[in-house]
Amino acid sequence: MTVELQKYASQIKPLNHDAMEQARSRLDSLVKPPGSLGKLEDIAVILAGISGELYYDASKRCVITMSSDNGVVEEGVASAPQAVTHMMTLNFVKGITGVSVLAKQFGADLIVVDVGVNADIDHPLVKNKKIRKSTWNIAKQDAMTRDEAEHAILIGIEAAIEAVNNGYTLIGAGEMGIGNTTTSSAVLCALTGIPVEQSAGKGAGLKEEAYKRKLEVIQTALLNNKPDPNDPIDVLAKIGGFDIAAMAGLCIGGAYMKVPVVIDGFISMVAALAAARINPTVKDYMLASHKSSEQGFTHASNALGIEPCLHLNMRLGEGSGCPIMFAVIDAACAVMRDMGTFEQANIGDEYLDEIKEGDNFSV
Amino acid sequence: MTVELQKYASQIKPLNHDAMEQARSRLDSLVKPPGSLGKLEDIAVILAGISGELYYDASKRCVITMSSDNGVVEEGVASAPQAVTHMMTLNFVKGITGVSVLAKQFGADLIVVDVGVNADIDHPLVKNKKIRKSTWNIAKQDAMTRDEAEHAILIGIEAAIEAVNNGYTLIGAGEMGIGNTTTSSAVLCALTGIPVEQSAGKGAGLKEEAYKRKLEVIQTALLNNKPDPNDPIDVLAKIGGFDIAAMAGLCIGGAYMKVPVVIDGFISMVAALAAARINPTVKDYMLASHKSSEQGFTHASNALGIEPCLHLNMRLGEGSGCPIMFAVIDAACAVMRDMGTFEQANIGDEYLDEIKEGDNFSV
Repeated sequence: MTVELQKYASQIKPLNHDAMEQARSRLDSLVKPPGSLGKLEDIAVILAGISGELYYDASKRCVITMSSDNGVVEEGVASAPQAVTHMMTLNFVKGITGVSVLAKQFGADLIVVDVGVNADIDHPLVKNKKIRKSTWNIAKQDAMTRDEAEHAILIGIEAAIEAVNNGYTLIGAGEMGIGNTTTSSAVLCALTGIPVEQSAGKGAGLKEEAYKRKLEVIQTALLNNKPDPNDPIDVLAKIGGFDIAAMAGLCIGGAYMKVPVVIDGFISMVAALAAARINPTVKDYMLASHKSSEQGFTHASNALGIEPCLHLNMRLGEGSGCPIMFAVIDAACAVMRDMGTFEQANIGDEYLDEIKEGDNFSV
Repeated sequence: MTVELQKYASQIKPLNHDAMEQARSRLDSLVKPPGSLGKLEDIAVILAGISGELYYDASKRCVITMSSDNGVVEEGVASAPQAVTHMMTLNFVKGITGVSVLAKQFGADLIVVDVGVNADIDHPLVKNKKIRKSTWNIAKQDAMTRDEAEHAILIGIEAAIEAVNNGYTLIGAGEMGIGNTTTSSAVLCALTGIPVEQSAGKGAGLKEEAYKRKLEVIQTALLNNKPDPNDPIDVLAKIGGFDIAAMAGLCIGGAYMKVPVVIDGFISMVAALAAARINPTVKDYMLASHKSSEQGFTHASNALGIEPCLHLNMRLGEGSGCPIMFAVIDAACAVMRDMGTFEQANIGDEYLDEIKEGDNFSV
């Protein structure tokens, strides 16, 4: 690891357990059976652990979307042509894509970063961090050099640092890159050892033949490029993409800056898993948003050990699930901040013990 | 059925299928693989079917919470004392409960209705629609007369009509009533025939002995009161509660007024099932919010055939899940209203066919 990457990855602090205990204690004092707000309570506790404070202000939030192309598309594994990455990157900043619309709806800014789109982009709203135009074809060689992989991770870390320095307290991780479910499936196989058939999805439309080709390509890349499962950077370099590496960097950067990072769909979750393999503490700063309908998603989220809150059968990517999760996080913050205690609710000690033992007011 | 109830229940219009087709067609023209926004698209289509319009304005929304007591608490089946129903009803309008805080967070008003709280409530913000103070104990007799059951349903219908006349275009169904998971479990058993053990939950805290008692009580009520599974009003009268019947009325009233009704947790879902047994078309106007951790919930939602969008392990009731679902509905409305088409996105015909056949931009 470069000195700089090492610096960030090694300086991630564990969550503040005192603050988490205070948060649990405050939640238990609120006028409801303990734990009855489920994951809203869990989220409020995590936010306390991240910030060290009981009340979290998540009002300034953004989705950071990493755009990049993948050389593997020349194998015919993708259902859309590579030029779509370029066009969609421009559409993000035009405000007409899924993630643009949803970010706006939930008061989030969209930050678009070009890490390796296979076209010249000169747009004031697209951050130019291009490493080069597209990775190489993983069916024929490594996707990138190790230096490039570390560079991509660093781009993600620096994007998170810049966002936090600009006042953002909540970051969503998004991506755009034709061919990136193939690379993500390959990375997931390498990191977890699951068979390709479980990792790569056919989705709703990929035809049987193209799907078979996708499986073969991933298998070939795994066999020929020989990624080291114990070295996540090696995995990202040999069979990943600039987008996945940059999103892994976002996760590391968010944790380094003590700001929660919301994970979107399959590609985002695989990047999160790679980040947690670089430093397991990174995981504590992540919140999963929605259960992608891409079949590899659940293997990735199980391997990472985080559970999504939304079941929407979405499979768009772009970071489009993150803003909806921001609303769930708002709910958790509101509960912690605004609910009254049993005392304020005039529910005295004579009832308190009974209620606290019970499972539900309504039982 | 009384003439009035019959009037409402029989005049529920099917969804507007032309509008739904137009909605699907617009969604397919938006710059994303068809169907990739999953349930957000389904919701947008349902809203078009309900309203007959492509764009739905869900900004004026409310949760209507029905408070009532249950005679069965004298059997020791509840973990909180009956007086908590009264206190929480007052706490709703004080703004310090879970549903109050979450409604406020998501721009919803909270309307609290006393249908049968076992106390005198004289508060300007609690609507007095009290049928009487508490139902009877279902372990010993019917919960209420058939007239009372129809009256409770009518209260719910009228509350929905009043809300819509006041401009609300989105209604959430909530409840408060110590003992109402027992009555809901009984109603679920009667309507679906599932065994009591699957219908009634122990939750996190109900002790083994109290749980056994709960099962016995439900079994006794089913055997002695003999509700007719083919007559949902008979079921509500013999083993239900004023709160469940009034919530079933909310569902019918929302459908009658062509406004979507959001279902909260277990009790709410059982009431929704009862409403759909009165008129199956009512189901088309319902949206499920979250998957309650009360075990009977999934049986009820499967029997009804609607699926929740949020998995939050919540089990508070009150209508607390509805406002979070309002945010998901906002997301669906924003997608329909604000996303650009393929044409606007400069993704021309040369790509369009390929993309529409594919499953994911990112594949």
